[in-house]
Amino acid sequence: MKQKSAPSQSLHLTSRRNPVVRQARDLKKRRFRNDSQLFRIEGHREIKRALEAGIEFEYVVYCDAISRFTQSESTLTRIESQSDATLYASSVNVFANLSQWQNPDGLLVIAKQQKKALTDIRADTNDVFLVIDGVEKPGNLGSMFRTADATGCSGILISDPVVDLFNPNVIRASLGTVFAMPCAIAESTDVVRWLRENQLNIVCSSPQGSRSFLEAPLGSGCAIVIGSEKDGLSDTWFEACDEVVSLPKEGFADSMNAAMAANALLFESYRQRQPSVKPSGSPNRS
Amino acid sequence: MKQKSAPSQSLHLTSRRNPVVRQARDLKKRRFRNDSQLFRIEGHREIKRALEAGIEFEYVVYCDAISRFTQSESTLTRIESQSDATLYASSVNVFANLSQWQNPDGLLVIAKQQKKALTDIRADTNDVFLVIDGVEKPGNLGSMFRTADATGCSGILISDPVVDLFNPNVIRASLGTVFAMPCAIAESTDVVRWLRENQLNIVCSSPQGSRSFLEAPLGSGCAIVIGSEKDGLSDTWFEACDEVVSLPKEGFADSMNAAMAANALLFESYRQRQPSVKPSGSPNRS
Repeated sequence: MKQKSAPSQSLHLTSRRNPVVRQARDLKKRRFRNDSQLFRIEGHREIKRALEAGIEFEYVVYCDAISRFTQSESTLTRIESQSDATLYASSVNVFANLSQWQNPDGLLVIAKQQKKALTDIRADTNDVFLVIDGVEKPGNLGSMFRTADATGCSGILISDPVVDLFNPNVIRASLGTVFAMPCAIAESTDVVRWLRENQLNIVCSSPQGSRSFLEAPLGSGCAIVIGSEKDGLSDTWFEACDEVVSLPKEGFADSMNAAMAANALLFESYRQRQPSVKPSGSPNRS
Repeated sequence: MKQKSAPSQSLHLTSRRNPVVRQARDLKKRRFRNDSQLFRIEGHREIKRALEAGIEFEYVVYCDAISRFTQSESTLTRIESQSDATLYASSVNVFANLSQWQNPDGLLVIAKQQKKALTDIRADTNDVFLVIDGVEKPGNLGSMFRTADATGCSGILISDPVVDLFNPNVIRASLGTVFAMPCAIAESTDVVRWLRENQLNIVCSSPQGSRSFLEAPLGSGCAIVIGSEKDGLSDTWFEACDEVVSLPKEGFADSMNAAMAANALLFESYRQRQPSVKPSGSPNRS
């Protein structure tokens, strides 16, 4: 097999103690991400989406010996043409030490955190926003971004954040949609004020909801609010909301997890936006 | 604080090398679960649901020093009255070694695996079954049980299983609904035959689906088939199915994860069973 030559301007990383390697590794931790305002992106799909979304790349560590067996090579070519990021070639040993994946695909980007405020987000009276309040699990947060993206949600507002949006597991679970979706982080009282100014109906869900989620107009002009896995929604939201809807609990369990609830509500919102699409045909086999 | 006395018949575990402790620990591994046909249940909610579902308990390890600060004490009392399981009191040290939880609640049950065959499952022509084919992640499998339970799905058929149904993470992610839901495990060709015999429509989902999932009758008389995270559905299912539906992809990402897809389809199935429940009222704030 022909060995692909390293990009012309690349520098070589062969020691785990190299300051670049050390920083890239440290960025696994929130404290270092907060201090430097940098974060890590692994995975060619995630990196491609970050490029498309205009995220600014600081530097790239790649490992030829791994990336030529994955789809990362073409991503590396795209990074070279679209960004000024410094490229570092690394040994397999160094890359394995840097990666957070069991089967790394040989590409790691260190990028600049971009955080939007509420004032950066545009809202139309027909929009549907997802509000995520105090969610704790990176996998749940990432999965909500993915569902919001798939169902055509207008944007995500994170109120009183617990988990770091730039946590590598958020990025992975979101499949990079975290870069595409308009998203602001703010205190819950400010999010409430913003939603009211934009005339969006605030809809919370709770087992004590006054009507089924299927009865509430969720297709436009509203914000769907999801609370934390452990404590549900804070009082701020119950006091501010225009409606509390309930989700089905036909079975054994008495609660629904945050990502499941977001999924159910966002798909119902999507459904209500296609009023002419209805089931037809015979249910059973003829 | 008054120390609760240990149940009368309990035996004391103080060493990690005790054969009971060793077996309970070994059961974290699939190989040992397969050999012994036993499995572990941690968590008072999960254990309560297993009790309600008539799962046979072999023995129980509890740790007074932990369980008196959790809701596990009342569960222990219920186990004593409803099962013949041997009770073992353990030291904090031993229990910390046994538990798979970061914050254990002081109760671990070792129970007998109960596996149902297709012939044990009753189906009505109005039923909706979820078929899970080759799913790999315990968290996804558990979450699908939870959604199926919440939405009133009739049962789950696992075809060509990859992940072990008795994996502790399946049980935890399912919140114990894995014990409540009628469930059989079988080869995909046998599941197809069973569904046909029971006149249930087989519905798969794929980005290439011929119509939207909102157009398909999913409320009764069908089986919704979900494929693996990595490879999607096997050819067996595409050849056998009566319909392939598509899920929305309004956004950036080109795929949907298995648990999200199951969630969307099961909630739509639930919605179609309440034809008179429709959204009403004004969407925006007045």
